[in-house]
Amino acid sequence: MFNKQYVMKINKIDNSRLNKIDPNDSPFGANISDHMLICDYENGKWGEPVIMPYGSMNYSPALMALHYGQAIFEGMKAYKDKNNEVFLFRPEKNFERFNESAKRLAMPQVPKEIFIDGLYALIDLDRDWIPTKPGISLYIRPVMFASEEMFSARISNKYTFAIMTSPAGNYYDKPLKIKIEDYYTRAVDGGVGFTKCAGNYGASFYPTFLANKEGFDQVIWTDSKNHAYFEESGTMNVMVRIGNTIFTPPTSTTILSGITRDSLINLAKYHNLDVKEERISVDNIVNAYQEGNLKEIFGCGTAVVISRYSHLGYKDTLMELPQLPDEESYAVFLKKQLVGIQTNEIDDPFGWRYKI
Amino acid sequence: MFNKQYVMKINKIDNSRLNKIDPNDSPFGANISDHMLICDYENGKWGEPVIMPYGSMNYSPALMALHYGQAIFEGMKAYKDKNNEVFLFRPEKNFERFNESAKRLAMPQVPKEIFIDGLYALIDLDRDWIPTKPGISLYIRPVMFASEEMFSARISNKYTFAIMTSPAGNYYDKPLKIKIEDYYTRAVDGGVGFTKCAGNYGASFYPTFLANKEGFDQVIWTDSKNHAYFEESGTMNVMVRIGNTIFTPPTSTTILSGITRDSLINLAKYHNLDVKEERISVDNIVNAYQEGNLKEIFGCGTAVVISRYSHLGYKDTLMELPQLPDEESYAVFLKKQLVGIQTNEIDDPFGWRYKI
Ligand SMILES: Cc1ncc(COP(=O)(O)O)c(C=O)c1O
Ligand SMILES: Cc1ncc(COP(=O)(O)O)c(C=O)c1O
Repeated sequence: MFNKQYVMKINKIDNSRLNKIDPNDSPFGANISDHMLICDYENGKWGEPVIMPYGSMNYSPALMALHYGQAIFEGMKAYKDKNNEVFLFRPEKNFERFNESAKRLAMPQVPKEIFIDGLYALIDLDRDWIPTKPGISLYIRPVMFASEEMFSARISNKYTFAIMTSPAGNYYDKPLKIKIEDYYTRAVDGGVGFTKCAGNYGASFYPTFLANKEGFDQVIWTDSKNHAYFEESGTMNVMVRIGNTIFTPPTSTTILSGITRDSLINLAKYHNLDVKEERISVDNIVNAYQEGNLKEIFGCGTAVVISRYSHLGYKDTLMELPQLPDEESYAVFLKKQLVGIQTNEIDDPFGWRYKI
Repeated sequence: MFNKQYVMKINKIDNSRLNKIDPNDSPFGANISDHMLICDYENGKWGEPVIMPYGSMNYSPALMALHYGQAIFEGMKAYKDKNNEVFLFRPEKNFERFNESAKRLAMPQVPKEIFIDGLYALIDLDRDWIPTKPGISLYIRPVMFASEEMFSARISNKYTFAIMTSPAGNYYDKPLKIKIEDYYTRAVDGGVGFTKCAGNYGASFYPTFLANKEGFDQVIWTDSKNHAYFEESGTMNVMVRIGNTIFTPPTSTTILSGITRDSLINLAKYHNLDVKEERISVDNIVNAYQEGNLKEIFGCGTAVVISRYSHLGYKDTLMELPQLPDEESYAVFLKKQLVGIQTNEIDDPFGWRYKI
């Protein structure tokens, strides 16, 4: 997949910050690695990508992305195995999704030579930043934003593409209390819900803050029309186990097509678990709960891998989910399989792992 | 309204750029005036606002606003009359709306001493940038964005508030061809449509680009459920005259509460024109057109004031609107009244004009 011929311009940092930071003990996303990749788009074409020391860029507050939200990102990880070999997980999926987001936000496509080869060169250079402790890894953040500086509300003529990385501690560790959102809306048909554009996230903070005040950790977003069907959960896709079947909503224009979601579906099928991509109605969930068939609900995404839920709030009722022992939990089983492949602990029959 | 006691810290520019730029002949939003106001929020409180030369700010590409879209803005204008006196128009409305946007985006409230007094001091300092030619003015852009630099998808702990200004040529001059949008959606109940957050704008560019390719200048956004009712038009509120009645949709969580819209409603009432805040269905528009009662459609907003429409596209049909002579047009009449008040040409019975 990578074009190893590609020669990337690299300005190396003089003094690594690694002597001040322990990648194995760093809060998620707080310490950014020594280098970043930067590539500018202007006059209808991309310039040369450059890897340089992470740092400031001289934007004025008239930066168009700050006013009109042409800004998209991706989230992926690099993993180290016991022998210090470095692996990426399905990076071509993030590359494709990034360009789908770009199209919807009227931004230019980023070529593979910049995104994928740049990723390769950057991870290779900063490989000492990749944590070695089990369960943690290097979080990778590709981002593109409008970089023209003016006030007309129109498509920008300039963009900056960047890749930064940061050691990634685990996001959540204990089972979460989740609220089924019945007023606020994350996404709508004909909107941008299927993209990783900046605006989707800021819009979700206030509803999440309100749920936090009520004692919940996160929300499950429901459809915009009637708040009757599950869509996603916070910044994760959502999976529900009823009896011995795993349900997850089909992707659509309102649901981000998660790479973790897709991988878990494939893993479940591979291990002969029953998995269905079907709409999940809130009514069905409440019924299954009352009948004692609601076994597990979990969120999935690159940052958290899998996050199990302990409670589900819906209007005035709080449903307490059964606490399955690890051996009986599909969530625990699937997480183990997925992390095993990502970190080169087990076989990868899918060809998902890419060694750097 | 302004607290003239307030002493603002000012770092003046050494050499004004006014000798290189003619404010009377400058494209909308392209030339930013000499000074900007900057104020930072951190540890739960605002720092001291400072007026300084417009320029770069040393943000890294990890700036949270670029990833999670906590970014809001306002658009207002300063006008010069024949005697070079300077006026603002209903600035307290922009101030209030800014803080409503802030709340929905989980951002801190900006105090009046910073927003309003800062505005006063900045406009006063850069008054030579205000165009004198009739029909043009100084565009004012308050903006606030998340300025922490890290990767967790959560509410930022740091923000920057800024005010910049720029001479404003007219946005549109000729009547526009408009498409009634029947697939893409701008806003949804429970979403952020009523705010001026950055994400709303970037999300609208691609649908607008597609409409442009079909030969339209702009779109009229319709409701997210059935695309059956008018909501807004591009970045303007929309008004429709059927017979001798002006209709405009009532504001809601999906419609920005425009200050131009509100002013025109008040002006229309004051001049005994019939004006109704009612939902406008596409079916009604098509009927009125077929019956010959559809007289005028226009968009309204601070940047354009009023923009008249010549054609309305809906699915496969193109409706050609009557071209009323200026004396018969409500749009022309109302625009004249509004601009007259803004530029101190006529009496201001509403107390909207504020002299600086
Ligand atoms: C809104 C949203 N849904 C789901 C996901 C999960 O996607 P992935 O598994 O590709 O990380 C993410 C991002 O991580 C997200 O931001
Ligand atoms: C989406 C949208 N609608 C309407 C308006 C008009 O509002 P105002 O008259 O306050 O400028 C604006 C901004 O100018 C806008 O961005």
